Amino acid sequence: MTTPPHTANERSYADLGRLGVEPLWRYYRNLFPAEPHSLAVPFLWRYHELRPHLLHFAQALSLEEAERRVLMLVNPGMQDPPATVNSLYAGIQVVTPGETAQAHRHSAGAFRFVIEGEGAYTTVDGARLRMRPGDLLLTPGWSWHDHRHEGTGPMMWLDALDYPLVNALEAGFFETYDQRSQDIRAPRDLPASQYVHGRLVPAWDTERATASLVGNHTWEETRRAFDAIAHDAVGSDVDGIVLEYTDPWSGGPVMPTLSCRIQRLPPGFRGAARRRTPGTIHHVVSGRGTALVDGRTLDWRDKDVFAVPGWAWCELTNTSRTEDAFVFSYSNEPVLRALGLYRETLTERMG
Amino acid sequence: MTTPPHTANERSYADLGRLGVEPLWRYYRNLFPAEPHSLAVPFLWRYHELRPHLLHFAQALSLEEAERRVLMLVNPGMQDPPATVNSLYAGIQVVTPGETAQAHRHSAGAFRFVIEGEGAYTTVDGARLRMRPGDLLLTPGWSWHDHRHEGTGPMMWLDALDYPLVNALEAGFFETYDQRSQDIRAPRDLPASQYVHGRLVPAWDTERATASLVGNHTWEETRRAFDAIAHDAVGSDVDGIVLEYTDPWSGGPVMPTLSCRIQRLPPGFRGAARRRTPGTIHHVVSGRGTALVDGRTLDWRDKDVFAVPGWAWCELTNTSRTEDAFVFSYSNEPVLRALGLYRETLTERMG
Amino acid sequence: MTTPPHTANERSYADLGRLGVEPLWRYYRNLFPAEPHSLAVPFLWRYHELRPHLLHFAQALSLEEAERRVLMLVNPGMQDPPATVNSLYAGIQVVTPGETAQAHRHSAGAFRFVIEGEGAYTTVDGARLRMRPGDLLLTPGWSWHDHRHEGTGPMMWLDALDYPLVNALEAGFFETYDQRSQDIRAPRDLPASQYVHGRLVPAWDTERATASLVGNHTWEETRRAFDAIAHDAVGSDVDGIVLEYTDPWSGGPVMPTLSCRIQRLPPGFRGAARRRTPGTIHHVVSGRGTALVDGRTLDWRDKDVFAVPGWAWCELTNTSRTEDAFVFSYSNEPVLRALGLYRETLTERMG
Amino acid sequence: MTTPPHTANERSYADLGRLGVEPLWRYYRNLFPAEPHSLAVPFLWRYHELRPHLLHFAQALSLEEAERRVLMLVNPGMQDPPATVNSLYAGIQVVTPGETAQAHRHSAGAFRFVIEGEGAYTTVDGARLRMRPGDLLLTPGWSWHDHRHEGTGPMMWLDALDYPLVNALEAGFFETYDQRSQDIRAPRDLPASQYVHGRLVPAWDTERATASLVGNHTWEETRRAFDAIAHDAVGSDVDGIVLEYTDPWSGGPVMPTLSCRIQRLPPGFRGAARRRTPGTIHHVVSGRGTALVDGRTLDWRDKDVFAVPGWAWCELTNTSRTEDAFVFSYSNEPVLRALGLYRETLTERMG
Repeated sequence: MTTPPHTANERSYADLGRLGVEPLWRYYRNLFPAEPHSLAVPFLWRYHELRPHLLHFAQALSLEEAERRVLMLVNPGMQDPPATVNSLYAGIQVVTPGETAQAHRHSAGAFRFVIEGEGAYTTVDGARLRMRPGDLLLTPGWSWHDHRHEGTGPMMWLDALDYPLVNALEAGFFETYDQRSQDIRAPRDLPASQYVHGRLVPAWDTERATASLVGNHTWEETRRAFDAIAHDAVGSDVDGIVLEYTDPWSGGPVMPTLSCRIQRLPPGFRGAARRRTPGTIHHVVSGRGTALVDGRTLDWRDKDVFAVPGWAWCELTNTSRTEDAFVFSYSNEPVLRALGLYRETLTERMG
Repeated sequence: MTTPPHTANERSYADLGRLGVEPLWRYYRNLFPAEPHSLAVPFLWRYHELRPHLLHFAQALSLEEAERRVLMLVNPGMQDPPATVNSLYAGIQVVTPGETAQAHRHSAGAFRFVIEGEGAYTTVDGARLRMRPGDLLLTPGWSWHDHRHEGTGPMMWLDALDYPLVNALEAGFFETYDQRSQDIRAPRDLPASQYVHGRLVPAWDTERATASLVGNHTWEETRRAFDAIAHDAVGSDVDGIVLEYTDPWSGGPVMPTLSCRIQRLPPGFRGAARRRTPGTIHHVVSGRGTALVDGRTLDWRDKDVFAVPGWAWCELTNTSRTEDAFVFSYSNEPVLRALGLYRETLTERMG
Repeated sequence: MTTPPHTANERSYADLGRLGVEPLWRYYRNLFPAEPHSLAVPFLWRYHELRPHLLHFAQALSLEEAERRVLMLVNPGMQDPPATVNSLYAGIQVVTPGETAQAHRHSAGAFRFVIEGEGAYTTVDGARLRMRPGDLLLTPGWSWHDHRHEGTGPMMWLDALDYPLVNALEAGFFETYDQRSQDIRAPRDLPASQYVHGRLVPAWDTERATASLVGNHTWEETRRAFDAIAHDAVGSDVDGIVLEYTDPWSGGPVMPTLSCRIQRLPPGFRGAARRRTPGTIHHVVSGRGTALVDGRTLDWRDKDVFAVPGWAWCELTNTSRTEDAFVFSYSNEPVLRALGLYRETLTERMG
Repeated sequence: MTTPPHTANERSYADLGRLGVEPLWRYYRNLFPAEPHSLAVPFLWRYHELRPHLLHFAQALSLEEAERRVLMLVNPGMQDPPATVNSLYAGIQVVTPGETAQAHRHSAGAFRFVIEGEGAYTTVDGARLRMRPGDLLLTPGWSWHDHRHEGTGPMMWLDALDYPLVNALEAGFFETYDQRSQDIRAPRDLPASQYVHGRLVPAWDTERATASLVGNHTWEETRRAFDAIAHDAVGSDVDGIVLEYTDPWSGGPVMPTLSCRIQRLPPGFRGAARRRTPGTIHHVVSGRGTALVDGRTLDWRDKDVFAVPGWAWCELTNTSRTEDAFVFSYSNEPVLRALGLYRETLTERMG
């Protein structure tokens, strides 16, 4: 049994809850930290450890049961709701020959970055897009998409979504298509070919969308972009030769919520340290190296995924003396820029 | 004691946690709802119930102890972290004669809407702004601000911040000024006078900012804007005569994260129902009426505050047959529009 | 009879004309001057000299004959085609009681600035706008407009058009309305009242246009904007307290081709010299002073009009020691800015 | 000796000239045509007729004398000032081995489209750009440029400038460099390689310019863009497979004043008729066909240039049954769009 409050002060505090109010002064320091401390922690997911589990579930669990057969890469600091870094999610999806992942759409924006396998395709709003390792396939928010595998081995890809942001904003919508897969309206990725050059765009097609029209940014094209850049090009002190995938109509990021980049770290590259407000998810296309994140070293190699929390210092190194490393990454940088919340700090490399 | 897992399947599930992964299929429906269900609930804070507590704490708690003496209007569905609707916070602050609220700044954007009292001012980046009932005073993100009361009775105002959004994005920064209050650099709100007309702007001052330069949108000016609109003007079926406070340089919202509006509901006005993804906080300047929110009726009158959750149906009525009602409101509409996540649905009024 | 050309060189030159080609080297210096030399000259039109002629034609020439009864202010350096400064035209129109100027529209953008008289109105796309001295009334390109005078004395106003630019771009279209005047669809200038405040805009009306929706920027409002600016405000070294009329939706100029400004020169103001690529037409609302333009002095007073050619040095002085001078002006600055051709140079005032 | 005017009317008219005014009613119909009638006429310049003259002057006239050795393609309807269509100029320049065309810059924007020859380069702001047939090389307004030929035969290219527009706006500036040629700062066209892909842009280089950074849009890249587009792609009824050269940062035209396009007309293509306010200059890269322009037929083939006046009906046909035709073209479309003056009308193809 609680003692009744005796003073006016005690009575006032006791009343507040009933009225739906709280004294700010008891929350103040928590609500206004001097700088961000992300709940996310630096973390590395090793592909060779995940792959056996993906193959196991490819056998043990049907797509009818799972709708999407994905292992979510949940940051140990962000389990409820599950996220990989702030605003963003990464998972690895596996599809086996003959399978079709149910057509659906959601207000969350998504893309896939293919890790291994051949013979699958994604259908986005009726256009059938081939999937090959290194390809980046976009499904902007509210576009219908299903996946179909007509090849022979398992297909695996990185699945990226902004649902943590969309859900945090309480703006998530979802619909299931009324068939398992969409009818094919366009047998090819028309925008990907018509906009293949990027600097030369179709002048007959003037309809603008809020996200890039290009369905597939193939690895073949990405490779070509790197090949065109002189091998002695300097690029960024922090990121090496880093390219942004862009929307050909606006010259800006591929979606209003997501920035996608691919970088080449030359042999022996050691990047300057930087911290910036967006957290970033990296996927190693090839090569090996380290990420020194707030004093913790992540040793990455081909196909691994690693998370760099927002406002954490990060320094990337290619530990090979002979091979380039190629690293794909994504962040919510366009969101923080649009809202005036983007900040970054660079530091001089020491020693 | 737990039994060790026997099957490959059980072993796989058991391993996942250790590797930082989770099976998406067990989270699927929670992460992708068919439409948003805000954690916020429709809620009304009655000013006459809060006022005695504000007066109590004005006596019982010094500003040195409290830094800001504010009762937070915490939505019963959003207590941890505390918010009023999604992304947004409202509180009521009280300052007594002779007090100074410590100068500080934060990356969260803020504004005040004055409820009662005379004689206080807010200093924003060195410019001293008078506060009078009905005035809207902006402190965009990262602007220094302190409050000082030189009048006689208590001053109370609505305090609005976007810290729930900024914190959800892990982009919160905060600094305390090295004096209690800023030195006065400008004795008047220069932008407020130079931009008083809005349609006629100073051509000698071409520096653009990410938020409006106008410090104080006085009630005198707001009143004048309403007076200029013919009394038989129709306005919006949903909102009546509703005006957006704008940034004179861009014609857009006053901050990239916040839209502020003021509406006049004519006597007997009954608005059509609408739902939209942004949640909205309303503050009644004068008048009385109801808000029918997802089937629940909130009876509001002068100086009350009420919360309409995102994607809730809402229908506003002025229950007076003789008096206009004036309602101030704010939402994160600019955020949802910038990210392609704004949606609204209107319905025909029945009967 | 001409002698046949004898050398290969002579034969080549002789052939060129027939083939539609010319040797660039014979035109080079003319086509590429080191800096602009406007065809326009500094020029002053004295209202008291023009007024008797306007009154004469108001009697001698019917509006049926004239369609518009306007004296064009033709710069002595720009007679064919006639223009006042580069890209722009000014004229003075007179309408007598009972007259209606035929409804028409043109792709050229236009506005009126009222000089004297009461009782007339302009109908723009069906909305009836009152005209009073000092009012700025917009008729953006391709909007229907007719003028009607229901008062007692003559009405005179400055007529401004960008037809020299539109014609130079060969983009002029024109249509006559099928009645003498438009039916009145809106008895008031709705946008002018709904957007009266400029910083508080109707949120229910979201249709954007390429030019400002506001029909009439009344002198009453202009006066109010000046009154709000502290009398000791400094403004621009060159232009004094200079305000730009803006489009409330964009915060930019009222039309894509025209920038309109109004400036207050305090008693004794002597502006710094500046030259800039746009030519500018000035109309004196009240006061007296001088413009020193490329070494030539123009003495202006109430209601005069004067032209400052592009890239001419100009220095404005208010020669009164007691009265403010108010000067309205317009230029094609938005055009030159949009095309990357705007330049200006300031100089220090000497002595 | 003239007779003195007798009536008040005659006296008034006689006075007007002295006062710098003209009666609008005497100019009215000329100034406000119902629709544009371009001074330009449809015209074809046959390359095989011009080439001997270019070779002649390559011998007969030194670059020291000529500064630029160019035959201007002057439209028979636009001789003073000389232009090819409204706002735009085309010429054909020839440079012989060992020659250097003097470095200079002008506020007029320019580009070259290479017709024949190998071994020359253009240096733009210190970057050395190779020139090969089919290449489009940009020299945006106010960029230093000189040309140097180190190959063996003559080099010829199409020279395009917007000086008619810049001069019509009286905004022309020009400077000669203090050496004959610029020092080479960058041995390669860095932007052309770094932005080669267009959809993948350097993220380390965030400086924006008012025009495209890419110096050379090589024919190799243009060819590749066409090759990526399926041969059965439909494109535009009017223009076939038509691509716009874009600024990778903005996704818009390469300069604020100029739109550059390249189109492929499949064998037997007969385009629908269209007229639009911008006049257009076409250069045939390869193929043969006709342009039916306001009822007049121009028979074009490889390397010819032809002018289509603004607001003239134009219908393009590829008269070959077996070969594609490639046609490069440019217009001031971005200017007319920025000013709200762009219009086009399409018609159904008949029979």
